[in-house]
Amino acid sequence: MRLPRSTRSLLFAVACAAPLPAEEGMWLPRQMPALASELKALGYTGDAAAFADLTGFPLGAVVSLGGCSASFVSPDGLIVTNHHCVQGQLQFNSRPDRNLMVDGFLAPDRAGELPGGPGSRVFVTVAVEDVTAAVTGNIPTEVTGRAYFDLLERRQKELTAAREREPGYRCTVTSFFEGLQYLAVTQLEIRDVRLVYAPAAGIGNFGGETDNWQWPRHTGDFAFLRAYVGPDGRPAAPAPANVPFRPRHWLKVSAAGASPGELVFVAGYPGRTARFPSFATIRETVEFSLPRLLRRYPEQIALLERVGAEDPETALRVSTRIRGLHNTLTKTRGVEAAMVRGGVLAQKEAAERQLLAWIEADPTRQAEYGHAIPGIGALQAERARLRERNLLLGEFAGAGTALGAAETLHRLAIEAAKPDTERDPQFQERNWPRLREGLERLQRNLDRRADRALLAYHLESIAKLPAEARLTVLDRLVGLAPGQEPAAATAAIAAWVERHVSASRLYERDFRLGLFAQDPAALAAAADPLLQVAAALFPEQEQVRTEAKDYSGRLARLSPVHAAAVLAQAGGRVAPDANGTLRVTYGTVKGVESRDGLFYLPQTSLRGVAAKATGQGDFRAPAAQLAAIRALRAGTASPYVDPRLKDVPVNFLSNVDTTGGNSGSPTLNARGELVGLLFDGTYDTVASDYFHDRERTRSIHCDSRYLLWVLTAVERADELLRELTLAP
Amino acid sequence: MRLPRSTRSLLFAVACAAPLPAEEGMWLPRQMPALASELKALGYTGDAAAFADLTGFPLGAVVSLGGCSASFVSPDGLIVTNHHCVQGQLQFNSRPDRNLMVDGFLAPDRAGELPGGPGSRVFVTVAVEDVTAAVTGNIPTEVTGRAYFDLLERRQKELTAAREREPGYRCTVTSFFEGLQYLAVTQLEIRDVRLVYAPAAGIGNFGGETDNWQWPRHTGDFAFLRAYVGPDGRPAAPAPANVPFRPRHWLKVSAAGASPGELVFVAGYPGRTARFPSFATIRETVEFSLPRLLRRYPEQIALLERVGAEDPETALRVSTRIRGLHNTLTKTRGVEAAMVRGGVLAQKEAAERQLLAWIEADPTRQAEYGHAIPGIGALQAERARLRERNLLLGEFAGAGTALGAAETLHRLAIEAAKPDTERDPQFQERNWPRLREGLERLQRNLDRRADRALLAYHLESIAKLPAEARLTVLDRLVGLAPGQEPAAATAAIAAWVERHVSASRLYERDFRLGLFAQDPAALAAAADPLLQVAAALFPEQEQVRTEAKDYSGRLARLSPVHAAAVLAQAGGRVAPDANGTLRVTYGTVKGVESRDGLFYLPQTSLRGVAAKATGQGDFRAPAAQLAAIRALRAGTASPYVDPRLKDVPVNFLSNVDTTGGNSGSPTLNARGELVGLLFDGTYDTVASDYFHDRERTRSIHCDSRYLLWVLTAVERADELLRELTLAP
Repeated sequence: MRLPRSTRSLLFAVACAAPLPAEEGMWLPRQMPALASELKALGYTGDAAAFADLTGFPLGAVVSLGGCSASFVSPDGLIVTNHHCVQGQLQFNSRPDRNLMVDGFLAPDRAGELPGGPGSRVFVTVAVEDVTAAVTGNIPTEVTGRAYFDLLERRQKELTAAREREPGYRCTVTSFFEGLQYLAVTQLEIRDVRLVYAPAAGIGNFGGETDNWQWPRHTGDFAFLRAYVGPDGRPAAPAPANVPFRPRHWLKVSAAGASPGELVFVAGYPGRTARFPSFATIRETVEFSLPRLLRRYPEQIALLERVGAEDPETALRVSTRIRGLHNTLTKTRGVEAAMVRGGVLAQKEAAERQLLAWIEADPTRQAEYGHAIPGIGALQAERARLRERNLLLGEFAGAGTALGAAETLHRLAIEAAKPDTERDPQFQERNWPRLREGLERLQRNLDRRADRALLAYHLESIAKLPAEARLTVLDRLVGLAPGQEPAAATAAIAAWVERHVSASRLYERDFRLGLFAQDPAALAAAADPLLQVAAALFPEQEQVRTEAKDYSGRLARLSPVHAAAVLAQAGGRVAPDANGTLRVTYGTVKGVESRDGLFYLPQTSLRGVAAKATGQGDFRAPAAQLAAIRALRAGTASPYVDPRLKDVPVNFLSNVDTTGGNSGSPTLNARGELVGLLFDGTYDTVASDYFHDRERTRSIHCDSRYLLWVLTAVERADELLRELTLAP
Repeated sequence: MRLPRSTRSLLFAVACAAPLPAEEGMWLPRQMPALASELKALGYTGDAAAFADLTGFPLGAVVSLGGCSASFVSPDGLIVTNHHCVQGQLQFNSRPDRNLMVDGFLAPDRAGELPGGPGSRVFVTVAVEDVTAAVTGNIPTEVTGRAYFDLLERRQKELTAAREREPGYRCTVTSFFEGLQYLAVTQLEIRDVRLVYAPAAGIGNFGGETDNWQWPRHTGDFAFLRAYVGPDGRPAAPAPANVPFRPRHWLKVSAAGASPGELVFVAGYPGRTARFPSFATIRETVEFSLPRLLRRYPEQIALLERVGAEDPETALRVSTRIRGLHNTLTKTRGVEAAMVRGGVLAQKEAAERQLLAWIEADPTRQAEYGHAIPGIGALQAERARLRERNLLLGEFAGAGTALGAAETLHRLAIEAAKPDTERDPQFQERNWPRLREGLERLQRNLDRRADRALLAYHLESIAKLPAEARLTVLDRLVGLAPGQEPAAATAAIAAWVERHVSASRLYERDFRLGLFAQDPAALAAAADPLLQVAAALFPEQEQVRTEAKDYSGRLARLSPVHAAAVLAQAGGRVAPDANGTLRVTYGTVKGVESRDGLFYLPQTSLRGVAAKATGQGDFRAPAAQLAAIRALRAGTASPYVDPRLKDVPVNFLSNVDTTGGNSGSPTLNARGELVGLLFDGTYDTVASDYFHDRERTRSIHCDSRYLLWVLTAVERADELLRELTLAP
């Protein structure tokens, strides 16, 4: 690897550079001590170094649910997160006649807590080590492409295996700064997670899709889970004999919430941002990926709503998927608008132009970094040719349908025949439990009506591929051909889908799980039509994967160089892109002039809930809540009334830097008390995944006073409040 | 009339009461001196009595355009008003290949000013006299119903005639406080009104229906007309020899605009509010009239858009009507929401309950006022039976179609046979010119496609009337019957409409005007099918009118008593409901927390124009404007940049009390300079026509700096700027 000489010192600078404006950032905990002076300027009197200690206070209390963030709030393993982060648990425990997603749930006592269902996890980060040298060190420059990819992958597997020897721990080696740095993150993996409390949708999802990404916001986006471990205190499979996990640290839920001007921290697991990648990469996203999603997601939502309207059980099964599609769609609309009309893409281009000028201004820089941006651009262009075809193949055989399950079973059968260290990481034995749970959890969502509609939908697109990019296997199987009459293609697709979906037994939980980790012969003997399709598609998919690995290997030779250039130009102290690892961000509770003439005030309150509560659509506040608001108006005292607002605060804005995955993160005050829960960003914020605008970007939090008021005045959840050490 | 004894003193109190909170009000100029202490409290150092002088400064400069307000801004009769107030003039001068409504217009010089078209008027108020005694005095109590109505009408005709002896003046006797007071308003009527300047729709109607009633707003809703009179200085018909009118007063257009916290006055001609009427009256509006409009207007808009899509000439002819329907529809939606969900109807009910309690608390009050509210309620209930039928009849033969023209011609023929003093006031000779102009101006909008669709639309509703409320003449003419098969009714209607609309010559300007003021025999001889329909419908309509007069006469015995009770309870100083007469309102430039968590900042600026200017739909800012904004960004100096905003202000909010008809009103600062033009209210404001909420109600103004900046930087309208005494 042609690693720039200055790289090591740059990474060192990330932790130690002299004070510079650090205006954005989902900071690595280890970067926090270096930000002490910025924090001091914001009035912080605590020790910034405390945030570097993963097992100390407060980070020891901050956990990942795998996709969402959360935190311990009692010594008995009680966890608070967002309502929208426990949708899976609510759906798992719902029946058509008992819809917890609508009605909510409050466990009467510990014994009455509900199982989280397969795949529910709590991850507690216990160690983060720099393994860059072990991953990328000592590889001759000529090793590139597929060979380089395979080598990096093998080294990461070895590092992971070494850290997972003790049971109950999970390790992930993750790339930071586009492959410039690799960190091994080790987490305790708790597998018995139970549902303690979730409010009704009329509180927890108040505003629904209408208010999603919007302000003013009035969502009680909170819920409680509890982590259980074996009687020996170590992670164990769900079992009645398990006992509550006793975390070393937990957060105090503040009865004072957060107020405008106050310094707040958010600790959590942001999923993915793309501020580092080159302009060519972002342009590809803006010009190809976003418009494609904006075209296809509304079609899929319409299709799932249509099948849901035909049958209430189908409706229940597709509901989470629809909510997910809506959320991504709304976000993507905002990203597209900001990128194109809002000029973010132009800003990105201007920034890269400056970087190029900075590189060209110095022959040493030119020699070190000069090849990266043109190289990435060339790779990008090369990939464009078959991208639509490859995406369609991936979506057709992708997650969510029984065909997706068939594909997982088939690949597992192939991979299981290899030694574990040579398997695709996804199919290594360490991942079998989650693969199996995924196939089990699928039962909540799997639906023949939905599958027929989705598979036909993807095939209709595949039928229209140009002659030079056909999926020949599918052409043969389904009876498609370029230039075919559209009506003939549609008829062939309908007949094929009907035949395969109706005859497949993969919709049966036991049949599906019975084929887990069986060999290809056993799968063939099952004679399931969708498994046969998966087997027929396998060679074409392997080809696509092989090409992707070669591409990734070549890119892995260029993107770290690009990242190093960006870091060097910026003088060092920059937070890496989000990648699902634990981060800390800080900012101030404050409003924003969202548009010319329109100001988002920093807080909302119960009077806004009452004003929005039409009882229609997304605004069905529960009667008990409306009664509690009336009682408050009539003079009932509450310790959660904000003296300035003269009302109970509901949500607040801050300029902390967050993204998807941060959902459920605790918002902490300067004393490390939980003053809120991060749950969303404003619409102006969505493009900040690509280019951060600290002036206008705002995250949306639920004030801890609203949480406590709901538990007190609406739910009368005395036990829960007692556990939070607050008498009702 | 059982006039309460205290009435006279009450009306006196309106002008002279001791300071009391006067928090709302479209005040009569004569009430302004009594508000001196409130004005002083707001920092006014001028003489409040100046606003009582109709012919002095500044009110002498404030004029009515008949539906809109305006003001003189130069000694040469130059008038500034809203862009949306000159739609008629723009439409009159537009052709399919020269659409001034879209492209705007700037007269190259005085000779190049365009005729305003028939019906363009400027009214300058010159006198207001209290004629209450002459209208309602000395009538025995037993005279009521139709007889009372006729008597009041005759007395008003006499008062009007006496004040119109000198040519060029127009007098209107108008009821205030629900008939408790009558004022005779005399106005100079200028008939030669020419179009000087209107910006392109991309400035003057920027935001269009999307932004209508909304904030933040960025509309350049301004335009210039010029008033012309005969060479002798007196009003004259449009003629080349006419000369600019030289007003005694005109307003200086301020280059400093208005700033947050500043006291502003708005003087103009607000159309109609209904804050005085009883709860029963408002409930009738909320429960019957508003839902009916919300049902029927969208249907009519869809229908006109459909016919407009078929033909570009039709599209041009129906455009003004569609814009008007949209405006009313949007406003009505807001009124309905505020009334029902916003609780305004409940507030009104509570206020009436207080009034009833106040009346019942005292036997004298009980004797004076006790009968009014129950009496009005009973009248209201009685009217409900045939209201739908009568409304449908009125709409079918109403304004806007050739059948409406036929109805006017037919009624005029009948009325013209009577002595002038006995005619319906609408058909008195003094109104013949405007009736004739109305029939001429109709040419802009009259369209066979639109008429077919509208007449069929109304007939479809008429066909569905219940058996006990049939319009028997139409049943016979069209071939309708209760209980008829819907398809048969539709077929009969389509055939009937086609036959009548296709054969009528009323679409021809000369034919239509040739029948003006002809006798019934001449009309019959014309053998026009729509005139024959009008003649056949006449007896049924006369019957409806007679019943309405009887109702009005009975109501006129009750509503003044109710108004007197409201005034007495309030202690006197209350502004009367708007009724199209000159009023003054004052307030402060300020923003508002529109909704919980959302604040409307008091000003918008050019950066908001640029942000909204997508070039699509309602947001097509002209290229010249966008270039001027870019030039400003690039450093071009402008005297109109606000130092605080660091940008040119576009629109601003204030809490002045206004309504429809106020459009185009000058907004004045404490020195009487024109700092803006009133042009709209926020959506929260629309219900204030019924119940005023000073906390949330905001009017929307265009800042004079935006007007001057557009004339300077976009239009380079040097001549116009020179006339405004501001060198470019």
